[in-house]
Amino acid sequence: MDFWQVLEGRRSVRSFNGERDVPSEIVTRLLQAAIRAPSAGNCQPWYFFVVRNQSAKRALAQAALNQWFLSEAPVVIVVCAEPERSAIRYGDRGRRLYSLQDTAAAIENLLLAAVASGLGACWVGAFDEEEASLALDLPSHLRPVAIVPVGYPARRPSLSTDRRRLDAVVKEIE
Amino acid sequence: MDFWQVLEGRRSVRSFNGERDVPSEIVTRLLQAAIRAPSAGNCQPWYFFVVRNQSAKRALAQAALNQWFLSEAPVVIVVCAEPERSAIRYGDRGRRLYSLQDTAAAIENLLLAAVASGLGACWVGAFDEEEASLALDLPSHLRPVAIVPVGYPARRPSLSTDRRRLDAVVKEIE
Repeated sequence: MDFWQVLEGRRSVRSFNGERDVPSEIVTRLLQAAIRAPSAGNCQPWYFFVVRNQSAKRALAQAALNQWFLSEAPVVIVVCAEPERSAIRYGDRGRRLYSLQDTAAAIENLLLAAVASGLGACWVGAFDEEEASLALDLPSHLRPVAIVPVGYPARRPSLSTDRRRLDAVVKEIE
Repeated sequence: MDFWQVLEGRRSVRSFNGERDVPSEIVTRLLQAAIRAPSAGNCQPWYFFVVRNQSAKRALAQAALNQWFLSEAPVVIVVCAEPERSAIRYGDRGRRLYSLQDTAAAIENLLLAAVASGLGACWVGAFDEEEASLALDLPSHLRPVAIVPVGYPARRPSLSTDRRRLDAVVKEIE
């Protein structure tokens, strides 16, 4: 699939075709895309939980301020940062900046790879981190930074959300 | 260009063909790719400085702990977060997490769009934020989060850096 079409085709998909599962080979392809992201000093401060268990999905939806659509996706990927992996080399800048940026780049790759695979997904950031950690019994060195439901979209994708105009967010220094 | 090829073809490019400029239409295309990134509540907490001025590029290279290769790129894009734009709606989570994630997703889009345009680029995160702000006379509401030199690569791209194996960074919860 053409790169620019994938880029323009990405939407936040929040309703999924409940009849159609996502084969594990395709999930693997999404994860391989995620780990192609660059990371500061190639630390790769990331970890991914692939959740198919229904009660775990429901616990995540609850941690995400009752966003129940989460639990209707066949697969929910919880992306975690490992801040101390970046801090070893970069101290606080690694802990508070690089580990968040690196995982965010991985998430964006994952979302684009979902589009290129005919899937829909959504970056959910609004959740209680402690509750989400409890839901998956996360080890304390991992910080959940996004919950990403993945599935085949239930309907034609919505319109893309508006963007601020380029001239409002760009300045040239000649 | 095929999405998967773009994804696999991305490298950190640190040496540029000094003879070949990057047309402004192509820079615009990269920025349009950047702003296609998702953002929490569609806040779009980003701002981009497109730097072609030689003394500004040198000042940025110096702020980046003397990474002089920066100043050899025809174009240097400084990506800024606007943390308070996300904080209005999301408080501290917007300020310290979403605004960093949203700009990181935009940077990843920009890097991939560079590959799809035959360009090379590099995500530089190691710099003194205050010095970089001074170099561009940034307004205080903008926080520089990455410096991205962009140009045509001087040579065939290097090998991709190693990745941790998928089974070391993924756990399935069935």
